[in-house]
This record gives sequence, structure tokens and C-alpha cells, in this order.
Amino acid sequence: MTDHASPPASGADACLPVNRRVVLAARPRGKPDLDDFAIVSAAVLAPQEGEVLLQNLFLSLDPAQRSLMSAITSSVAPIAIGECMPGATVAVVRESRHPEYRTGEHVVSRSGWQEFAVSDTRDLRKIDDSQAPLSASLGILGSSGHTAWVGLTKVIELRPAATLVVTAASGAVGSAAVQIGKRRGLRVVAIARGPEKQQYMRDVLGADAAVDACAVDFEAQLAAALPDGADAVFENVGASMIVPLLPHLNERASIAICGTISHYNLSGQVAGPDNLPALLCTVLWKRLTMRGFSLSHHAETLPQFLAEVGPWVGDGSIHFDEDIVDGIEAVPQAFLRLFEGKKPGKLIARLDGNRGP
Amino acid sequence: MTDHASPPASGADACLPVNRRVVLAARPRGKPDLDDFAIVSAAVLAPQEGEVLLQNLFLSLDPAQRSLMSAITSSVAPIAIGECMPGATVAVVRESRHPEYRTGEHVVSRSGWQEFAVSDTRDLRKIDDSQAPLSASLGILGSSGHTAWVGLTKVIELRPAATLVVTAASGAVGSAAVQIGKRRGLRVVAIARGPEKQQYMRDVLGADAAVDACAVDFEAQLAAALPDGADAVFENVGASMIVPLLPHLNERASIAICGTISHYNLSGQVAGPDNLPALLCTVLWKRLTMRGFSLSHHAETLPQFLAEVGPWVGDGSIHFDEDIVDGIEAVPQAFLRLFEGKKPGKLIARLDGNRGP
Repeated sequence: MTDHASPPASGADACLPVNRRVVLAARPRGKPDLDDFAIVSAAVLAPQEGEVLLQNLFLSLDPAQRSLMSAITSSVAPIAIGECMPGATVAVVRESRHPEYRTGEHVVSRSGWQEFAVSDTRDLRKIDDSQAPLSASLGILGSSGHTAWVGLTKVIELRPAATLVVTAASGAVGSAAVQIGKRRGLRVVAIARGPEKQQYMRDVLGADAAVDACAVDFEAQLAAALPDGADAVFENVGASMIVPLLPHLNERASIAICGTISHYNLSGQVAGPDNLPALLCTVLWKRLTMRGFSLSHHAETLPQFLAEVGPWVGDGSIHFDEDIVDGIEAVPQAFLRLFEGKKPGKLIARLDGNRGP
Repeated sequence: MTDHASPPASGADACLPVNRRVVLAARPRGKPDLDDFAIVSAAVLAPQEGEVLLQNLFLSLDPAQRSLMSAITSSVAPIAIGECMPGATVAVVRESRHPEYRTGEHVVSRSGWQEFAVSDTRDLRKIDDSQAPLSASLGILGSSGHTAWVGLTKVIELRPAATLVVTAASGAVGSAAVQIGKRRGLRVVAIARGPEKQQYMRDVLGADAAVDACAVDFEAQLAAALPDGADAVFENVGASMIVPLLPHLNERASIAICGTISHYNLSGQVAGPDNLPALLCTVLWKRLTMRGFSLSHHAETLPQFLAEVGPWVGDGSIHFDEDIVDGIEAVPQAFLRLFEGKKPGKLIARLDGNRGP
């Protein structure tokens, strides 16, 4: 996305096209709150030669966006104070000055938390909107599904009939991992927090066993679900899940670290439930492989992913939930819900596609 | 090794061949002490058809033997109370009833902490004693050197000119890793405890930089030694080394977990210096690979290892230290020294090869 800085308009003017965006107002310490965000308005800019004007229709809200709000992040640069919150969107081309894009085409873009954006098209990918609803390109056919697919095909080495454990298995990425794992012939044990998710994971997602991470008998449930141990873990939570899993890992098991949501909200030195020595001894004794990955380094696999998973979405054989909120104003509040462990599916904000620029 | 149980002789009898062995007398809690061992005597048994009688000349003492003394170990079965402590030896064939072995031949065996043993030969490997001193087959040309070589060639993926960090770098495995790493074109940063080891690691082992893990400015030394970060870690210590290294790891760095000596002495639930969440976040953010390994699963690489490292030992171009103690009686006390951080080289017990069976 090309980000043209522009002074905020001093108020909504019905006669002028206005772009509303959510910017980072303050760096959260620990869990973010509403004061960390501000909604500002600016004029919609006109695209230059080689650019397109996009109107965002759907905006993806992801836990990983939290880590970019800290002053010190991973290798990616943090968001500056006053900068638009980043994120993937599904957008429609409203005006094109690029030969390969036509007005009305649908694309996935990296426009961030705003209603309009001008793009030089390098961040764009056209969507085949005949196959699935547009919003699916932000979830099951977007980063959520693609992340699950990369973890299970490029990061973990899996033999058929091996036992896969998926943590945070009721979430957008986890539920895709459970279903892709089943379709690839694995025995899948799904872990999520709360008793209400257990039946869903078994009956809707098709997990062979479901475990409630909040249950008082969590460890007994885990042992019962893993009578022959686990060969691989698709890990999306952090230390609180990895430590209880250690005794159940088989020799040469693999752990794909896809996310560590339980640690995102801690500021400064990361702390939390801990047993690093136990992890290291287990890695040694069981000759484990633990590997971190991020989707951005596997972008070239997108066509292969879409070729496999796209038809399952098209024919309705793979299940995905979307939790859709309406309007840019609702975005900050909706984002905070990601850290309350209650999300029933991929969280998406629907912006008003009928508002004219 | 075939272990013929036999009642202990009630005292040394000069007229009868006597085998003295060190057995596990009690399971240590924490650091082992002398009361955990007992020296018992038994008659030397005669080999049966297909077996050989071995007299052990050198016995390898290794930190990993500690972990086998606990009731719960890795996937390997623990040593039973009263059982001979396990360990590699260099032995001479005293009597052979096996067509492929002749009296007087030298072998590496798994005879354990005893003076004599009968073997069905499945644990034996003949030694070319023209190339190096016999004891070298327990250290630089045995498990120590082989472990270092496997870690650097089969576990870690290294580009030429990459930066390798070796922890416990003055020990038997670590010093081999430093030197093999240098010969493979890497920049090597060696970490060990104590100021007296720094010059040794630079001048004798050839490390590009040496860091004192006990220094008050340890973290500053580490930063100065790693201006461009680290691409790989050959890790032999545990959490106390891994946590300070995390900020210096480059993207896609690899950590080979070869040992966790700092955690071996803890009984029950393993505990210690801790920051598991930081490790997990770093594995994710930097897309690290962490992999445990043990030599026993790479045994087939021995000829390849000996072909590369054997000539360096033969021509004196690789340095190795041996700390040799004399007599089976000295073995328990010598073993305890492994856990005091003062070992100047591979710890080996020399048994009396002139004692007749």
C-alpha cells in the first residue's frame, strides 16, 4: 500500500470524500484498551499513474496485530504512533490508473484499518469471487487457512495416521488446521478453552478427540486423548499449552510454533507460566524439532494452498465461522475481544461499501 | 554387553580372577555423592561360544551417565539399583571364542564401570591403534568428537562464514565443536565458565571470540562477540545459556540441543532459570529451528566422522585434553568432579591393564 500522509479533516463533510482510519494512539502495556486507538478522518486521495483507489469492504482483525503495537517487536518494524493500524482487507477497485486493474474488481490488499486506500498494486491479489464469499479471502481462504496449511505441509513433517495436536483449535487458524489435518489422514486431537467448544470441535470440525484446556481434569483429558502420544503439535498459544504437552510427545515429534497469543500482551521482558528447563530436556531426550514460522515467508505457496483448500470451501465440505462486526467505528472494540478467549470464528469488520468516496 | 549376573565375592582373593565393578547403590537426589555408588567384586566369568572376555583399559566418564541414575529418565531405561554403571570403555580382548576377534585386539565396548566384561561382540568396535592413543577413542575419536561432528553436520544447517556459538566450549564435546566448526569455515564464538578458559579457547582451540559465562559483564561480552548475531548454537548447557543468547539469534537460526548439563542434577520436576515464553516468542518471531539430538541415533555416521576427524588427530592438528584418573576405586570420586565445572578435558579412568584376570 502506498500511504499518502494527509492532514486529518476537521470534521465529516458530506460534500467531500472522507477516509476514516483507526490509528495507534498509544502503545499498550499489557492488554490493549480503547484509549490505545483513535479514529481520524482525512480526505480520500486520488490515485496517481500506476495506482488504484480501493474501497475496503472487509477488514481482518488478528491477534498478531497486537505484537506490532509494541515498541519492540519481532523483526518487523513496530507501528508508529499516529500510524494506521495494519491489516489485510478485501477491497473493491473504485478507480484505476493501472492497466491490469479495472473498476469493480475485488482484491485482497494490505490497506489496514481504514475505509479507503491508494495502492501501487504491489500488495494486491485479485480474488475469484465465484468460488466463495468475499470475506472468506480474509479467513479460510486467506491468512488463517493458509497459515494452517503451511504449518501442516511445510513446517511439520507428518506421516499418514500420525497423531496431530492442534491448540487454540476452535479459532480461525486452529479450526482450519483440524480440518486440513483430518483430510490429510491424520488423527487429530483438538484443544480449546471452555466446555462449549468440545462438541463443536468433534462434531463440526471432525476432531477425533477434544480437550478442554480450562477443565480441572485437563491433564487427564489430555492423557486420555493421547493414548499413543503425539507426533506433532500445531501450536498457537504459548507456554501454558506446551508444558502440559511435553510428557505426551513421542520421540522425534515436531512442534510448529505458529503463534503465542498468550504472550502477546506482556510488555517488556516476556514472562509467564514457565518451565524452560523441562522443555529443553524434553527436546534433547525425545529429539524433538521445534520450529517457528510465519506466513509471510511462505507467500509463494498461495496458489498451491488455494488449489487444495479452495474447492473444499466452494463445495461447503470445510467449515469456517466468521464473526462479523459492522463499521470502522466498531473495529477497536472488536479487536479487544480477540484477547478474551471468546471468539467463535474469524473476526472480520464489514465496512460500508455503499458509502461513496 | 552380555551381563552375567554373579554373586559378589566376599573379598579379594589373590588366587581367583576378580572383577571389580562400580554399581548404583542409591538414586541421587540432585547432585550425586559417593554414597550413591558401591564397588563390588565378583568372579571373572569365562566367555561362552561366540563371546569374548574383555579387560577394560580406559573408561569414559560422561555427564549423561547422571541422567540414567534417576528413576525417571529419558526414553532410555534407568539403571537398576545394584546394577553396574554404564559407560564406554577401551578394552583388550583377553580371551576370544568369536571367530572375528583375536586375543590382544583393542576394541571400544559398552562394558560399563568395571574391570572385566564378557561380550557377545555386538557392542564392540575394533580400534585402529596406529592412528592415535587408545584413550582418544573415548573422547575426540569417540563419543565426544562424534557428538560435536554430528551436531555440526547433521543437526544444524550451516552456511560457510556463518557464526556459530558453542556453549560449554572448553569441555570435551564443546572443544571438538569449536575446532570442527573452524575447519568448516565458520566464525566460532566459544562460551565457557571462568576467566582462565578464555585464552585457551582463543589460542589453543582457535575460537574467533571467547566469552566468560561467569563474568559480571557476560552480556556485554556476548554482545561484543556477536556484532552480526548468531546463525547457529551448539548448546550443551541449558536454560541459563539459551535465554541470554535469544536476543542475539539471527532469523532462521538453528539451535542444536546436545546436552543440558545444568539440569541433570535436579530431581523430579525439572526447574531452573526460566523464560519459556521468551523462548517461544523468539522461536516464532525469528523462525528458529531448535532440535534435540543424541549420538545413539547417528551411529551409522561413525566411519564418515572418523574419516574426517581421524587424520586431524593423527597429525596433531586438532587439540584435545584428557583428564586421566587411575584405578576403578577412583572412578566415583572422579565422576562427581564432572558436576563442579572444573573439568579441563575429557574425563577418563585408566584401569590396570597388567592385572591378570
